[in-house]
Amino acid sequence: MKIYNFAAGPAMLPKEVMLKAQEEFVNFQGSGSGVMELSHRGKYFQPVIDHAEANIRELLGLSDDFVVMFIQGGASMQFAMIPMNLLNGGTADYVDSGVWGAKAAKEAKLYGTANIAASSKESKYDHIPAQSEWKLTPGAAYLHITSNNTVAGTQYQTLPEAPAGVPLIADMSSDIMSRVFDANKFGLFYAGAQKNLGPSGVALVVMKKELAERTSDKVPTMLRYSTYIENGSMFNTPPTFAIYMLGLVTDWVKAKGGVAAMEEINNAKAAKLYAFLDDSSFFKSPVAKADRSRMNVVFRTPSDELDAKFVAEAKAAGLTDLKGHRLVGGCRASIYNAMPMEGVEALVEFMKKFELENK
Amino acid sequence: MKIYNFAAGPAMLPKEVMLKAQEEFVNFQGSGSGVMELSHRGKYFQPVIDHAEANIRELLGLSDDFVVMFIQGGASMQFAMIPMNLLNGGTADYVDSGVWGAKAAKEAKLYGTANIAASSKESKYDHIPAQSEWKLTPGAAYLHITSNNTVAGTQYQTLPEAPAGVPLIADMSSDIMSRVFDANKFGLFYAGAQKNLGPSGVALVVMKKELAERTSDKVPTMLRYSTYIENGSMFNTPPTFAIYMLGLVTDWVKAKGGVAAMEEINNAKAAKLYAFLDDSSFFKSPVAKADRSRMNVVFRTPSDELDAKFVAEAKAAGLTDLKGHRLVGGCRASIYNAMPMEGVEALVEFMKKFELENK
Repeated sequence: MKIYNFAAGPAMLPKEVMLKAQEEFVNFQGSGSGVMELSHRGKYFQPVIDHAEANIRELLGLSDDFVVMFIQGGASMQFAMIPMNLLNGGTADYVDSGVWGAKAAKEAKLYGTANIAASSKESKYDHIPAQSEWKLTPGAAYLHITSNNTVAGTQYQTLPEAPAGVPLIADMSSDIMSRVFDANKFGLFYAGAQKNLGPSGVALVVMKKELAERTSDKVPTMLRYSTYIENGSMFNTPPTFAIYMLGLVTDWVKAKGGVAAMEEINNAKAAKLYAFLDDSSFFKSPVAKADRSRMNVVFRTPSDELDAKFVAEAKAAGLTDLKGHRLVGGCRASIYNAMPMEGVEALVEFMKKFELENK
Repeated sequence: MKIYNFAAGPAMLPKEVMLKAQEEFVNFQGSGSGVMELSHRGKYFQPVIDHAEANIRELLGLSDDFVVMFIQGGASMQFAMIPMNLLNGGTADYVDSGVWGAKAAKEAKLYGTANIAASSKESKYDHIPAQSEWKLTPGAAYLHITSNNTVAGTQYQTLPEAPAGVPLIADMSSDIMSRVFDANKFGLFYAGAQKNLGPSGVALVVMKKELAERTSDKVPTMLRYSTYIENGSMFNTPPTFAIYMLGLVTDWVKAKGGVAAMEEINNAKAAKLYAFLDDSSFFKSPVAKADRSRMNVVFRTPSDELDAKFVAEAKAAGLTDLKGHRLVGGCRASIYNAMPMEGVEALVEFMKKFELENK
């Protein structure tokens, strides 16, 4: 049976990438060792990390003003590192559009003031707070947003602008490289790799180089951005295999036509699923139409019992991991770059059948 | 040509482990997905992390007083997390037996006083400071040692005792699971996985549970030990593939007879190499005989030029990564658990030949 994995992350990776990594798993480029057995200081690994960085720079169109860092600890570690490095007792604005953004704001309170500029928490994060209603702090240290909300299933359709002089910071864990965006409007953006970029165990952090100067001497070595900049992300042993996989995944994105091509197919995949949801009188999307995520499509049947039945029967049919996040329940289909259109078509066919049988 | 990789870390892993991971790389237990594509909250991964922890508990003989944590950032992140969680403005004693221990002490200064209880820095870390000469602080927050010094090639032959009431902390990155030791004498010990446990990207941290109570509210979530304890190391997405590999490596250690069996073969491997060095009038070990490492055997030829020639010719003969650490030069053979006796025998044969040709 063909299996499609709709997990929210760690998530499916492109089959071609997985097969290539498997093929050279025990013998990378004739070295006699697998990538994960090779010294990060040796002749094989430096080109691997350089290649991953070059791919990222090319795919995201990064100028030399930006540094590219590979840091352990996932996006959650960035929730702490951002204020540790950039807040210094000042005030930062956070737009609270989901549970992950709220977690980010919580960490900032340890290093200064986290102003919640806007929040959709009261309506269970069913929309992105309208930019016209954000209450921004003049001269804020930065403005933090979450570009796509993995749990609630919402996404900024247009990325905002920060006021002049205020660095815009975005957690892009669940939609990086899924659509074209202008990196130049950001001071910093970051993403845990395990959705669109590779396996878990590494986060990509892209930052305007000049921001590194803000960090105080009181920040530990491994938590300072400057440590990663000055040592090419190799002050200590980096997560070498995860970075290698990130290189392979970005090779695949390039071969498929780059981020613009990803965006086109992602739009088509999401459109197919939302069109079905809009037509259905059984399945429903709980989020505002204008803010629907093209990465995490959240939906519900008429009852919790039918949600559970749907998830179980879908799994038996080879459509796995459709359960909603444990905080909100319901169902969720994560359709990142690596999910082919065939997977979405198979899901829609199954949903049609389930609706007929259970209406 | 048979290749033996003597890298100091990331280092070679047992061949059986690499082949098993390769075999199930794209389809773990019939799930249709590779381990790295599976949700950490799903039914496949929880048993993987539970299994790794159970293996570690069994192999190290850990009582229920200890918690086992899997944390990203390597041993270097522990250099910061230990004082962040346990120092609280007090004084900690550090024994400075190598560059990594010195780095650990440096981070502690951000959170209190780091007393260098003893140091062998002036003699280029060629020995472990004698325990009789340590200047310990009464009532210290903890006593920190480095059980094996990867760069200098020294190792505690007998692990010390801390004064009553002072937690003993050890960085065991390069010798954990290589010899039997009594975990009960420690408050905390930790190890980056990439030498004896698995690939880079995860550190094993074992701690007496009661120490978690020391952490102040000012420590960020991802840097608090309690976060890992309360969430089974899954507050956020853990480095799933690295933890899976750690499970496979510890399966292999168990199949080979456990830590006592590892110690026996490690002793035989090191004895073979040191016996040759002692007999040679060409190769020399720069470290004190009483403190020689059984994991990282450091040696030199009569000149820097011959060191370089040796490393290059050994590599051409399939004996790779014998260059000493960039801070000290010379040569180094890292012979962790996964290096078979055959690799050490091949190295000694090659050294004999090189000596004859270059004396």
